[in-house]
Formats: sequence, structure tokens, C-alpha cells
Amino acid sequence: MNELLRYFQRELPGINQFLDAEAEALNGLVRDVAKHIIGSGGKRIRPMLTLLFARAMGYDRDDYHAIACSLELLHSATLLHDDYLDDAELRRGRSAAHLVFGRTETILAGDALLALANEMGARYGNARLCWLLARGIMETAVGEIEEIRFSKHPTLDREAYMNIIIGKTARLIECACRCGAALAGATPEQEDAAGEYGLNLGIAFQLVDDALDYASPTSETGKPEGGDLREGKVTLPLILFMEDGDEAASETLLGLMRDGELTEEQCAEILAQVQDAGCPQRTRDEAAHYVERAKACLAGFPPGEPVTVLGQAADYVLTRTK
Amino acid sequence: MNELLRYFQRELPGINQFLDAEAEALNGLVRDVAKHIIGSGGKRIRPMLTLLFARAMGYDRDDYHAIACSLELLHSATLLHDDYLDDAELRRGRSAAHLVFGRTETILAGDALLALANEMGARYGNARLCWLLARGIMETAVGEIEEIRFSKHPTLDREAYMNIIIGKTARLIECACRCGAALAGATPEQEDAAGEYGLNLGIAFQLVDDALDYASPTSETGKPEGGDLREGKVTLPLILFMEDGDEAASETLLGLMRDGELTEEQCAEILAQVQDAGCPQRTRDEAAHYVERAKACLAGFPPGEPVTVLGQAADYVLTRTK
Repeated sequence: MNELLRYFQRELPGINQFLDAEAEALNGLVRDVAKHIIGSGGKRIRPMLTLLFARAMGYDRDDYHAIACSLELLHSATLLHDDYLDDAELRRGRSAAHLVFGRTETILAGDALLALANEMGARYGNARLCWLLARGIMETAVGEIEEIRFSKHPTLDREAYMNIIIGKTARLIECACRCGAALAGATPEQEDAAGEYGLNLGIAFQLVDDALDYASPTSETGKPEGGDLREGKVTLPLILFMEDGDEAASETLLGLMRDGELTEEQCAEILAQVQDAGCPQRTRDEAAHYVERAKACLAGFPPGEPVTVLGQAADYVLTRTK
Repeated sequence: MNELLRYFQRELPGINQFLDAEAEALNGLVRDVAKHIIGSGGKRIRPMLTLLFARAMGYDRDDYHAIACSLELLHSATLLHDDYLDDAELRRGRSAAHLVFGRTETILAGDALLALANEMGARYGNARLCWLLARGIMETAVGEIEEIRFSKHPTLDREAYMNIIIGKTARLIECACRCGAALAGATPEQEDAAGEYGLNLGIAFQLVDDALDYASPTSETGKPEGGDLREGKVTLPLILFMEDGDEAASETLLGLMRDGELTEEQCAEILAQVQDAGCPQRTRDEAAHYVERAKACLAGFPPGEPVTVLGQAADYVLTRTK
């Protein structure tokens, strides 16, 4: 993982600087909200992937920041609206923006970041980049909506679950990879290979996220343990647990989750059972398949530092603990 | 106004059909919200302007719907978020969407319409269109934000007021006109002339809107009379009234508006005084100047039905009573 670490250490400051400058230039009413969500960390995976695919394709110019960072801002915009609509209290260990700045500022900051992301992608006069970004924004919006709709009618349907994690997470990561390739003037086949890597990586990333939600204490993830369960979100660890269990008990649990009537005691008990049954680990095992598929997509790119880092990034998704 | 009427009667059905089909294709959770806001009428000024400028430039293809309607959807997205954040009760005479469908559905429908608008503009593979749309989205978001910020610190500053109506209304109308010209492959000068027409028309449009708010009964506008005053929005009729009045009284009124402490009796009294002082009409007189400027921008376009209709559309902005 040495190359991965070195690459991030070298490139992250430039990306963060660019993000900070764009947030600083926003209107006063929403500037602090934007700085709060951007400054709260995040792994900057999306901008790094855009950069890495551009470099893997031999792109040597230094004007990649706007398109790379647009994906991060789009992701931040989604978090702002999501956390507000979910009544979330924490984000990356800090108070959620709407609790600090109020609903008006938070909703409008989300709108402004979405608009800014889109405008940043349009700066290149490259119609393909615009199209990729427009589609990424659309797919992410639909993914958000599907997730909320699913949480109102939770089921154990794995296909529905997969569609949701693809929509809310993997499509945007696919978009980040495609944008890097498109910036470098990739052929459709090369762009598709980059997109395929991103899609599989994104699925693995979200699977691990959902596993961590059941397995990792708040102090590491910055989110309350078992948060998905409490919020009524059915994710793979719970699906795996309930597939092995009693059907009637599952229906009762889904009903309680849907109506928000799960008590703290019931939550703690289910959490322990899901952990004891090894379901977080089994979720990680699923993620490992997608990581392998992602890595296979790199075969057509010329060897070198970017492709090495992309391979290590895929492995890192699997080993991260927060 | 015969040509204007005939043109709208001929083209509106196609535009409405396209908008309905796009709304129908949205995700189930937000579809009805989108249909509610799109189906609640609106004058379709933005799509018509895009079409008219494309036709004025000799564009004879029939693939204009996506870009023309994208501006209408963008406008609808703004209304959804605005009405929710303003706690508005009515929109075009119907209950505001958030009161019918709830906050989650309404916020997400706004996000989805914004994303869809953007995606529709990107369908042409035309980088200039993408850029215009991206900038229009950004300027509209900033305009919304400025308006809300201004309402928290209302002043009698006419420059601030003008910036707000430009941001929240005129820039998007400018964008609609520019997109029509750009679709037809306009030179930068031609696109600028179309944009200048739109900017001036948009300013006139909003000035008349603000005059109507003080002068027109709910039954015609579908909005409560004096709504801006009640919501603490300082607009030109009030600025003109207070510029002629007592400074201390103005400060007191601004304070009450800011704190939302204006009583129904005070509102009714101020409304009557603003009307008696002829301030709605003086606001319309201002609008007339902008209409003239808009019409002057048409000089460079070849005469014909589209340019005739654009001239009549400018006059119509001034004479409308709702």
C-alpha cells in the first residue's frame, strides 16, 4: 500500500486546497455550511479516482481539479440533503449541518454545491464530460429517492438492495472514473473499462460501509453503531441474518423498522445477533468479489504508478476499518 | 397580439406534452410532486423563448424540446425548494407541494427535476449549451440564496433589490434565450443580443410580478395579495413608498418585517397606503423601460414571425394582470 499512501499524500493537499477555495467563493449564507461539510473530512476517493484514470491514460496537464472536485461537491450536496431528510445527528463525527446552520441554509447549500459541481464540470467545453456529469447527477438523485422509498417499505429483496447501493454510491464513483478517462480523451472502450472498475469498486465500498455500520464502534466511523438498523435501513448484514432466520420474526422486525418502533433494547439485541452470526464478515466477503472484478478492469491500462495505485485502492476498500 | 396568441396556441401543446412525458418517467416517490408543480400551469415563457430564438435564427429542426423544457423544469425545481423553505401555502392557486406530498418528497422532487433539467440539456452533445445551462443553474441558486439572505436583513437598497430580481428571475430567462440562439449555432454577438433581450425582459417580468403582488387580488394571481409584505420581502413598490416617507417609520417597518411581527392590520394598512401612493403603477413604469430595452435587442434578427412574437411577448409582460 506504499504507492497508494504516497500518491494520496502528494495529491490530497492540492485537491483540498481547490475544494476550500471553491467553498470560500460561495455566497455568505451558504459558505459556512459548505465549508462544514467539505472540511469534515471524507476520503476524497472520487476526485482521486478521476485524477488516477486521467493519469493512467497519459493525461499530463494540471487542469483536472475542477472536474475531479466536482464529483466530491456533488457527493457533499447529497449528504447535506440526505442528512436533513433523515434527521441525522452526526456526519463524520461532527454535528450534521442542519443542526448547526438550520434547514434553509442547509437545503440551499446543497443546491448551491450541486450547481457549482455542475458548473465546474462544464468549464472544459467538453460535451462528453458534461453528459457524464449530468447522468451522474441524475443517477445519484434517483438513487437517493429509491433509498428513501425502500426505507418506507423495507423488504429482504437483495436485488432492490443492490439497486439502491448502485444508485446512491456506485454510479457516482463510476462517473468519477469515467470523467478521468474522458478528460484524457479515452475511446468508448477505455471509458467503459474505467467505468466498470468504478462501478464494482463503488459496490464494494458501500458493502463494506454497510458491514462497518454493524461492526465498528462510533469512535472509529464517526457514526452511531447500528445506525442503519435504527433508521430503518435494511442492508446486506441484516438481509443475510434474516435469510437464515424465521420468516415470521423477519416480518415483525421489518414492520417495527418501517414504523420506527424498534426500541433501544431490541436494536442492541439484533445488533449482537447479526454480529454473532458473522453477517458483517459475510458482507465483506461479498465485497471482496466486487474488488476482484474491479481489479480485473485495470488489465487494459498501461502499467505504471496510477494503475498500481488503482489496484491498491481497490484492496484498501476491503481492509479499511472506518 | 394576434401572432403571440397564435404562436402559443400552436406550440404550447407540444411543450406541455413533452413536460408531462418527462414527469411521468420520474421515480414513483417524486413523480406526483413533479406532475403537481408542472401541471399547475405557469406560462411556459422560458421554453417558448428558447424556441423563438432558435426559430428567429433559422433553426428548423424539431429536437428543441429537451433544451427548451429544461429551463421550465429548472424553474419548477426552484419553486419546490423555495415554497418549502418559505412555508408558502399557495402556488398558482393550488396548495404548495410540500403541504400535499410532504417535505421529503418535495425536496427530493426538486433535486430530481434539477438533475433531469441538466440531463436534458446535455442530450445534444453541445458543450456551449451545457455551459449555458450550468451557469444558469448556478446563477439561479445564488439568486435564491441572495433573496433569502436579503429577507433576513431587509433594506431599502435598490441595487440589492435589482441584484436579487436579476438573480432569481432574469438570469434564467436570459439563459433560455441564449440556449435558443446557441442551439441554432449563433455567433457570440447574436447569442449576446438574445441574452440581453432575455435579461431585460426578465427584469421587467419580475418588476411587474412585484407590482401585481401589491395590486392584484388573489383570485387573479393565485397568490395572497400583499404576500411579499407578509413574508418580509422588500420589493420595489415598498421601496418607492418608503423612499418618499419618514426614515424612522421605515426603520420600524423593516424591523417588524425582519422579525415577522407585522400584524394583519398593519399589513392591510401599508398595502392600502402603497396602493394609494401609486407605487405599483410606478413599478410598472420602471418595467416599461426594460421592455423597451428588450425590444431594441431584436433589431439585429431577421424579420419574421418569431421576431414579431418576441416583440409582442415583451409588450405582454407589461400588460398582464396575473
